[in-house]
Amino acid sequence: MPSVLIAGASGYAGALAARLIDRHPTFELAAITSRGDAGRRLSELYPHHRVAMVLEELDLDRHAAADAAIVAYPHGASAPLVAALLERGVRVVDLSADFRLRDLATYERWYVSHAHPDLLERAVYGLTELHREEIAGADLVACPGCFPTAAILALAPLAQAGLIADVVIDAKTGVSGAGRGLREDTQFVAVDENVRPYGVGEHRHMPEIDQELAALGAPVTAAFTPHLLPLDQGELLSCYVTPARAVGQEELDLWYADRYSGERFIDLVERPPGVRDVRETNVCAIHAHADERTGKLFVFAAIDNLWKGTSSQAVANLNLMFGLPEGEGIE
Amino acid sequence: MPSVLIAGASGYAGALAARLIDRHPTFELAAITSRGDAGRRLSELYPHHRVAMVLEELDLDRHAAADAAIVAYPHGASAPLVAALLERGVRVVDLSADFRLRDLATYERWYVSHAHPDLLERAVYGLTELHREEIAGADLVACPGCFPTAAILALAPLAQAGLIADVVIDAKTGVSGAGRGLREDTQFVAVDENVRPYGVGEHRHMPEIDQELAALGAPVTAAFTPHLLPLDQGELLSCYVTPARAVGQEELDLWYADRYSGERFIDLVERPPGVRDVRETNVCAIHAHADERTGKLFVFAAIDNLWKGTSSQAVANLNLMFGLPEGEGIE
Amino acid sequence: MPSVLIAGASGYAGALAARLIDRHPTFELAAITSRGDAGRRLSELYPHHRVAMVLEELDLDRHAAADAAIVAYPHGASAPLVAALLERGVRVVDLSADFRLRDLATYERWYVSHAHPDLLERAVYGLTELHREEIAGADLVACPGCFPTAAILALAPLAQAGLIADVVIDAKTGVSGAGRGLREDTQFVAVDENVRPYGVGEHRHMPEIDQELAALGAPVTAAFTPHLLPLDQGELLSCYVTPARAVGQEELDLWYADRYSGERFIDLVERPPGVRDVRETNVCAIHAHADERTGKLFVFAAIDNLWKGTSSQAVANLNLMFGLPEGEGIE
Amino acid sequence: MPSVLIAGASGYAGALAARLIDRHPTFELAAITSRGDAGRRLSELYPHHRVAMVLEELDLDRHAAADAAIVAYPHGASAPLVAALLERGVRVVDLSADFRLRDLATYERWYVSHAHPDLLERAVYGLTELHREEIAGADLVACPGCFPTAAILALAPLAQAGLIADVVIDAKTGVSGAGRGLREDTQFVAVDENVRPYGVGEHRHMPEIDQELAALGAPVTAAFTPHLLPLDQGELLSCYVTPARAVGQEELDLWYADRYSGERFIDLVERPPGVRDVRETNVCAIHAHADERTGKLFVFAAIDNLWKGTSSQAVANLNLMFGLPEGEGIE
Repeated sequence: MPSVLIAGASGYAGALAARLIDRHPTFELAAITSRGDAGRRLSELYPHHRVAMVLEELDLDRHAAADAAIVAYPHGASAPLVAALLERGVRVVDLSADFRLRDLATYERWYVSHAHPDLLERAVYGLTELHREEIAGADLVACPGCFPTAAILALAPLAQAGLIADVVIDAKTGVSGAGRGLREDTQFVAVDENVRPYGVGEHRHMPEIDQELAALGAPVTAAFTPHLLPLDQGELLSCYVTPARAVGQEELDLWYADRYSGERFIDLVERPPGVRDVRETNVCAIHAHADERTGKLFVFAAIDNLWKGTSSQAVANLNLMFGLPEGEGIE
Repeated sequence: MPSVLIAGASGYAGALAARLIDRHPTFELAAITSRGDAGRRLSELYPHHRVAMVLEELDLDRHAAADAAIVAYPHGASAPLVAALLERGVRVVDLSADFRLRDLATYERWYVSHAHPDLLERAVYGLTELHREEIAGADLVACPGCFPTAAILALAPLAQAGLIADVVIDAKTGVSGAGRGLREDTQFVAVDENVRPYGVGEHRHMPEIDQELAALGAPVTAAFTPHLLPLDQGELLSCYVTPARAVGQEELDLWYADRYSGERFIDLVERPPGVRDVRETNVCAIHAHADERTGKLFVFAAIDNLWKGTSSQAVANLNLMFGLPEGEGIE
Repeated sequence: MPSVLIAGASGYAGALAARLIDRHPTFELAAITSRGDAGRRLSELYPHHRVAMVLEELDLDRHAAADAAIVAYPHGASAPLVAALLERGVRVVDLSADFRLRDLATYERWYVSHAHPDLLERAVYGLTELHREEIAGADLVACPGCFPTAAILALAPLAQAGLIADVVIDAKTGVSGAGRGLREDTQFVAVDENVRPYGVGEHRHMPEIDQELAALGAPVTAAFTPHLLPLDQGELLSCYVTPARAVGQEELDLWYADRYSGERFIDLVERPPGVRDVRETNVCAIHAHADERTGKLFVFAAIDNLWKGTSSQAVANLNLMFGLPEGEGIE
Repeated sequence: MPSVLIAGASGYAGALAARLIDRHPTFELAAITSRGDAGRRLSELYPHHRVAMVLEELDLDRHAAADAAIVAYPHGASAPLVAALLERGVRVVDLSADFRLRDLATYERWYVSHAHPDLLERAVYGLTELHREEIAGADLVACPGCFPTAAILALAPLAQAGLIADVVIDAKTGVSGAGRGLREDTQFVAVDENVRPYGVGEHRHMPEIDQELAALGAPVTAAFTPHLLPLDQGELLSCYVTPARAVGQEELDLWYADRYSGERFIDLVERPPGVRDVRETNVCAIHAHADERTGKLFVFAAIDNLWKGTSSQAVANLNLMFGLPEGEGIE
């Protein structure tokens, strides 16, 4: 059984990855690490995940004995660890943004100085449905951000068909997307009975969305704005596309059916989805509507930001990297 | 003291109107009516409103002795009552859609057959900030829908400046907007930990928004989509405007300051507002952002759907109709 | 593979049972039935359960071919179906109250007239941890109510030790416990930002709790009051025991460790549990505190009302009835 | 118009007090102070309170010119400021625990060393309904804790009638009770879909409840346990009384009617109250039930922890101290 290290397992994403690997029929949990919480059982921090393993300080000599690693470090801190693991022959799925942007200048404008630009070429963008084969052959997979995951899945059929002239993406997300750190704006009293936009005009997922849409054939600058909602997990993206030419409902349905038929974790749904429908699943539920009044195309996509948006997608990618069925351990 | 009848006081909007009139320094509550709940104290249904008056069956002979009425009837049911009240000399603020749309055919396409098309001309559209003088002289005021209230306030400065080439309006609303009736999709378990679009491409507030934008100088078909959120009160509209020409932040700020300076119930805020900021107030909080990346203008507007979106705006209008200060009883 | 019928699969409990059986490594889902929703896929009603099977009208001739059935019918409606299934050799786990109370008169005082009092003797009370052996040999298991499940597990060690002189049980529950029917008091706006007691002095789980406490050696009349909270799943019971004699923390810990050591689904936790800790698990988390100031013993127990409180406990019992490991399919 | 200083106005309680005084028909807001947020408008921190005044560093020379002060400092920090204000002739309502406990040793066991034990005698316990006359004549009023407010109001009629042999108090509270500081256990994700006990056996409101019950004639040690709920404001206390002798519903109703008839802010309600019923009011809603099965008396009391539990009660007391109607500015 291939063994998997989870580096940074005390955050929401790493903890869920640990749980998924812990119960995985083929993988085995090698170790879980944390700086701040070393010495504690993961089940103390996340009782419902029911992972009794103890968090450790990272010890590269010992931990690099694992066959693979899921790295859940903050942006910037991830690249050095990823490089060290690769050097020791460990296959890596990275949850940070460090290897998502192919253009170094873009990365450094939106994030920080990059410690390992040499590895940018080597990384495969881990949106499972779109890059399955490259992922299978990779030793470094950069998992997409949660918003880009839903945005790209929602828009890929239209981008590939050359139909996107312009697009507005209005995102709604639960609070877990903000991570586990203490912040005034994620305190209960700040979020409860509230909804508000954040990161207006400056959210770091914007260049990632544009990069991937362009790669698919839609060189647009998407207007992307996330909103914080009073729920813990889940993300809904409402995409308003101005099409390059008139597109009716029938044609629209064909593009989506064509692109996603046979996709196990894409649900093309008849009614606009709610995030509850995909809670704790690896599924992206999509509903596309050709709006007669305005001539626009509305596409709604719902995912669980911690599952499909992060950790279960990471496991799907790891499955592919080891020749396992994509859905093993995440159904 | 002018006396005010609340017809249909057992719903959320009527009940709040009853509370506001009950505590109003000048108006006096004449009577509160309800079909289904006649005989019960309003405080049994809404303890926190603390209105002890008993709900009665409507008795036109007796109740038309009031100086004014706020009518909170369903669409279609409102027009006949409004007509009867006007005939008896009662000034009316109507919360339904029956007198909002100036074009009969449009009304009948989106709603039902109209019982009193003769009164359409007589009705004034009750968006306080935009129609103050006509409201002051009217005997029939049609209160705007909650979404149109926020949408028009958000976009009026741009519409009047001729700057709106295209607009997407993504609305997020609490559950009270759906009214008090029993529905599967407003049960707690359906809404909790969820967010989903509804009324996609067919929401009845769309023609109202288009009508008012056109009247202000922006003859566009807005792409409007509401989403249901797990909160009771509050509404946030995220408006994405493609401007007719390039507009920078400085110019944008000037248009809003110019239009709304001196407006007591419009808050131009420096950070994007949350609905918590305006909870249980008559305030509309607006933040406008000129987005350099996309060239679009983002305008966010937050209101309390039951207050500014419905009942406190109704009272503001009633104040104007009786020559009182606009904010009396709703601060 | 033994096949399992779920009768009444459109309610919360039946739907979850269907999901658990659908993914169970050994059992196979024979059919799922519903009166009101026959013809619809279960995934239309509960997308996140991801059970594509179509709901059918019950057809006893066909459906009694299953090896076992989980019956999720309302109280009173369950007994006749259970009798018919038993007669046809189908082993039954019943989720209703029809076979929980051993005393006919008590049942008929709290519920309705009983259609099959002859089967009362045959039924085994399905609190897994306390009646494992009888369950294994039974063909009719009456699953406990959700509140009794947590109450009895919380108090069993003290009851068996003869230490309970008096007990107050204050229960807090999420809304799913009320079932899927449309009710004014389970509408979002009624529950949100609220907490209130219900069924005060008349909740039907009271005689069940008293019956089981007495059977364990504590012939008390428990003061039991449930409260409705703004959350979907989860149940916390706060039990305040006046002990028959002074009991210190050390002794208290011994009684619980003694009773529950080796129990896979009982977590004795060091800090008072929250319901989030056991969400979507078959676990009951228990914390017992000997209170020096008052001399009382406080016992807190948290379960997921739909899982351990209903459907996953049903599957655990079914596992036992078929000689499978207790935790198969519910970990 | 008497002027009122709010010292410590950046916390939840102080901010609400500032809002209530700001809109008060008779009092005038002298100044609002804050250590950490001096220089900011209160409306930046609490937009919905709509208080535009700027927070200042405390400057005793200048600020002691006010006629009265509401002090919302942490326990221990309050006493020195209160002493200084009294010395300068400012009448004080203190929201901290510093002057609630009459016994110095008890205070110092549960809190910290006391800076001004000399003032303990001078302070009046500010539970409005029970100490109206002393409050009217006092220059130092110690506002009760939020839990003691509800507990004492719930139990006073029984305590005064000598009917309490034993009592269990199970409290449920919203998150605002924990104050505005950043804490892991008040982060949204920790509270959402959760309920858990806290401060078990060691909550500081216990000696305060016991002190007041004893003063009323019930020398008991109450078993008190609070629970944290996913709501922002509101507090429900479920009190389970073992009576000194049998008491039926009729007698019980008489004791409550007798004690509270004519009380404007006590609602004796026919059904168990929810906290929504009293949201943003100065009301305590009480329901008493004589439980035939157990012989116990159940008393449920609901308040808004920030209003009646803290700031609106403070204003009621201030009204009394200045000879104004008790309910001025808080209806």
